[in-house]
Amino acid sequence: MRLPPGVTATAFSEALQQFADAVGKEWVFTSDEDIDTYRDAYSPLWHEDEESIPSGAVAPASVEQVQAVVKIANRYKIPLWTISTGKNLGYGGSAPLLSGSMVLDLKRMDRVLEVSDKNHYALVEPGVSYFDLYRYIHERNLKVWIDPPDPGWGSPVGNSLERGGGYTPMRDHFASVCGLEVVLPNGDLVRTGMGALPNSKTWQQYKYGFGPYLDGMFSQSNLGVVTKMGIWLLPEPEAYFYGTVTVPKHDDLFPLVEIYAYLMNSGMVQATTLVTSPLWYARPDPELAALRASGSVKDLDDYAARKNIASWSVGLPFYGPAKVIEAQWEFAKQKFSAAVPGAQFHDGPSYRFPLSDDQLAKIVDTVPFGIPSLQIFSIIGSHAVGHLGFSPIIPMTGEAVLESQRVFEQVYRDLGSPGGAAASFPVFSFFPRAFVNIYLFPIVHDVEKNRQTRQIYRRLIKESAARGWGEYRTHITFMGDIMNTYSFNNHALLRLHETIKDALDPNGILSPGKNGIWPKSMRNPKA
Amino acid sequence: MRLPPGVTATAFSEALQQFADAVGKEWVFTSDEDIDTYRDAYSPLWHEDEESIPSGAVAPASVEQVQAVVKIANRYKIPLWTISTGKNLGYGGSAPLLSGSMVLDLKRMDRVLEVSDKNHYALVEPGVSYFDLYRYIHERNLKVWIDPPDPGWGSPVGNSLERGGGYTPMRDHFASVCGLEVVLPNGDLVRTGMGALPNSKTWQQYKYGFGPYLDGMFSQSNLGVVTKMGIWLLPEPEAYFYGTVTVPKHDDLFPLVEIYAYLMNSGMVQATTLVTSPLWYARPDPELAALRASGSVKDLDDYAARKNIASWSVGLPFYGPAKVIEAQWEFAKQKFSAAVPGAQFHDGPSYRFPLSDDQLAKIVDTVPFGIPSLQIFSIIGSHAVGHLGFSPIIPMTGEAVLESQRVFEQVYRDLGSPGGAAASFPVFSFFPRAFVNIYLFPIVHDVEKNRQTRQIYRRLIKESAARGWGEYRTHITFMGDIMNTYSFNNHALLRLHETIKDALDPNGILSPGKNGIWPKSMRNPKA
Repeated sequence: MRLPPGVTATAFSEALQQFADAVGKEWVFTSDEDIDTYRDAYSPLWHEDEESIPSGAVAPASVEQVQAVVKIANRYKIPLWTISTGKNLGYGGSAPLLSGSMVLDLKRMDRVLEVSDKNHYALVEPGVSYFDLYRYIHERNLKVWIDPPDPGWGSPVGNSLERGGGYTPMRDHFASVCGLEVVLPNGDLVRTGMGALPNSKTWQQYKYGFGPYLDGMFSQSNLGVVTKMGIWLLPEPEAYFYGTVTVPKHDDLFPLVEIYAYLMNSGMVQATTLVTSPLWYARPDPELAALRASGSVKDLDDYAARKNIASWSVGLPFYGPAKVIEAQWEFAKQKFSAAVPGAQFHDGPSYRFPLSDDQLAKIVDTVPFGIPSLQIFSIIGSHAVGHLGFSPIIPMTGEAVLESQRVFEQVYRDLGSPGGAAASFPVFSFFPRAFVNIYLFPIVHDVEKNRQTRQIYRRLIKESAARGWGEYRTHITFMGDIMNTYSFNNHALLRLHETIKDALDPNGILSPGKNGIWPKSMRNPKA
Repeated sequence: MRLPPGVTATAFSEALQQFADAVGKEWVFTSDEDIDTYRDAYSPLWHEDEESIPSGAVAPASVEQVQAVVKIANRYKIPLWTISTGKNLGYGGSAPLLSGSMVLDLKRMDRVLEVSDKNHYALVEPGVSYFDLYRYIHERNLKVWIDPPDPGWGSPVGNSLERGGGYTPMRDHFASVCGLEVVLPNGDLVRTGMGALPNSKTWQQYKYGFGPYLDGMFSQSNLGVVTKMGIWLLPEPEAYFYGTVTVPKHDDLFPLVEIYAYLMNSGMVQATTLVTSPLWYARPDPELAALRASGSVKDLDDYAARKNIASWSVGLPFYGPAKVIEAQWEFAKQKFSAAVPGAQFHDGPSYRFPLSDDQLAKIVDTVPFGIPSLQIFSIIGSHAVGHLGFSPIIPMTGEAVLESQRVFEQVYRDLGSPGGAAASFPVFSFFPRAFVNIYLFPIVHDVEKNRQTRQIYRRLIKESAARGWGEYRTHITFMGDIMNTYSFNNHALLRLHETIKDALDPNGILSPGKNGIWPKSMRNPKA
């Protein structure tokens, strides 16, 4: 039997018995086979001593059971690592950061409590997956869309609270959260926003409530267990259109991104898109590689002209009435044409909703249409067992795109690219007003390659922070490293997080170490 | 000399000397004349013993001075009531909730630190008013809009943190906040979001940072003094158009609001508008009053048809390229026409930006065009000295509009309408996905009338809460009453606020009582 840190075998046995009394003994897991299912199959610490392994798992079915579990954990000082569906792949899956934590698995709390297609929201429990919510809506023919992230088997609660991103106009998932119910570390139950008003009529329609607005405190957090969450949905749009803009020259990137930011920040483009370089994705060519390393803009422009490849491109997804989209695309074309000689435009796919079954069958990636999918796994490719994402937020400017490419490529040149990670990736607009630069690393069943990956990952964190770019989210292995970069005024923000953590969770039972935040008893003195 | 509660005259004198050493003695105010300027000239407790009066004011000019003031206040346990420009009229102005508090007046911190018209944001200090920020932008001919609230003399920091609303697509002011710098109650300085990363490049472009997202905790809050704030701006739109939809019959309200919610939640209408009844604003007519009291839909429809007055109307403001607006208005007209026989459409004002000086001179209310104004005071009218707003959030449904009108009109019939408050007001969309119902009460220099106003106000709070509608913001006089209605699970949310308050502010020096949150030493046992 694995033990939680600092807990005796006798005490742990007692606690397990009490967990079983609270949730039913078939919902307390401690066998090796069961524990294996909660490990991170794609851990960058695969088969190394440092891989964190839970001591067991407990799966309550109701709010009252969550409260009971939390109270027992307090009694025995057993750390709980909360998961909803446990599919947080690339970030640790269902594995805890601290070895010996019990996984608090909320998969049994899987009720869709309400969906409104008049006011366009849902109220869900944490174990509801994107597939579950989609099916609920589809079966009732409700005219609302969810916004799934790349793989749809995760949950709206988990993904939104981890501040993930999707592809439709509701792409910023935390921004769509409206009202939480939370079991606090002491077992007390709070409702935030308008939910604090008994019999509230607007819990899912108005976020802020009265007084301090606390929802954000429970995102990327170890301050509570969210048991209900409101989420805003998109009314089914009439149509969709995807246009692509390409520009011929290297320095055209600057006006390209500037106009893109105008369209995005004006609300004309509300969905996730990417800025990329068709050149980078041309077949490997040693001549091009040499030109890119030399950094000569003129030579790159000559090369692009000779090969007839655009230097940059941006995709623009539009959602709304067909005629509105037409006018928006026309406006965008005028803007880009006026700023960039030689800008070209390509009409991509266009749809009316709802899609017919025939249309659906032909669409490879349904995620931009609010339909969850697992298609992403075939896109990432089969050479890897899993993946790890390095994802710094950079300004939405051409300068930042170029600089980040240069800096990160240099790291790859210095350290090599273990397992075949690409040095150049497009930048995405998962969030309003900034780009996120996502580098994917394959995780393989090879200790040495994973060690190299961790080395390069940590170097990227450092180079990134040195330039004022911070990661928005990371795998459990790197949470401490990244929180460490958010160090303004001698880690003032972390010290504030710790003050709040100690006040709410004096026994330190909820997800110790999550995003670098440890309870008092486990905290190292800071430098 | 007025004294803060529990502070001796000797101690207070010492503290004042230390404040003077920190900020300069000309910036510490304790004379009666000076204190008068910090009183609420429009207090509903005007000339009554309960009116709260500060013991003085202190005005630091820098972050370091704010830190010094906070540390001195801790030493002497002097409550500080933070204001930015102090123009929070209708909510207490610059007056503290607790008599004897020192006003911490941030008016001297009035620097616009940055405005970007490429990425569309500003970084401002708390003493910067909407007029200041507008002038800064206008003088540099930057192509970005601010979103002023009704009167423009308040500050972006104050209004956004109080979660006020404006009229352009950036109307939800707290939603535009991106990154804070905060002096904590212990004098420590934190930066939230990406600001915690030294040399951050995206402090004003990405809200959440890494780990728990705390900005909301500092809104409507007494947990810190915000000394810098990032705020998203709107790229100057090409054009504006205001269309009005009217519908003939009483029950047409239901589809009218449903389509309105579709347009709003789809992002086609992003700005504040109102749903109202032309009937209510018809000249007073005893026949109509009787019909409305009787509640007969048929009789009301007959009356409206006979008088040729529409039963309901909604205004739709559009911002964007002219051709996009045209397509959006066309789409809206089709939607309403299909759902409501007899719906009529009226083309309102239409503009291209920037406005010429000639055009500007003719526009009465410039606020919807991002230009601050004090015009609202002439709209409220001259019969009042000040005003008080009762503003519950109700669902964006026709049912809720009707029910709230019925309930609040009944209160007026029961209690009368002191000073001439209107019983019926339009509902506004200051925030996404819900309506706010704003009732304005005049505050007059008449103790008895103000007493009646407070009585009716408290009755409205009660009737509202009984139906699950909660206020989003209120005057200092009613903060405790309203927090009291957010009572789910024996006031669990308030108890959480108090736990956080005690952890961050053990001496209870920052804005005691704000929104019903008191420090431990001043807290009454809850029922």
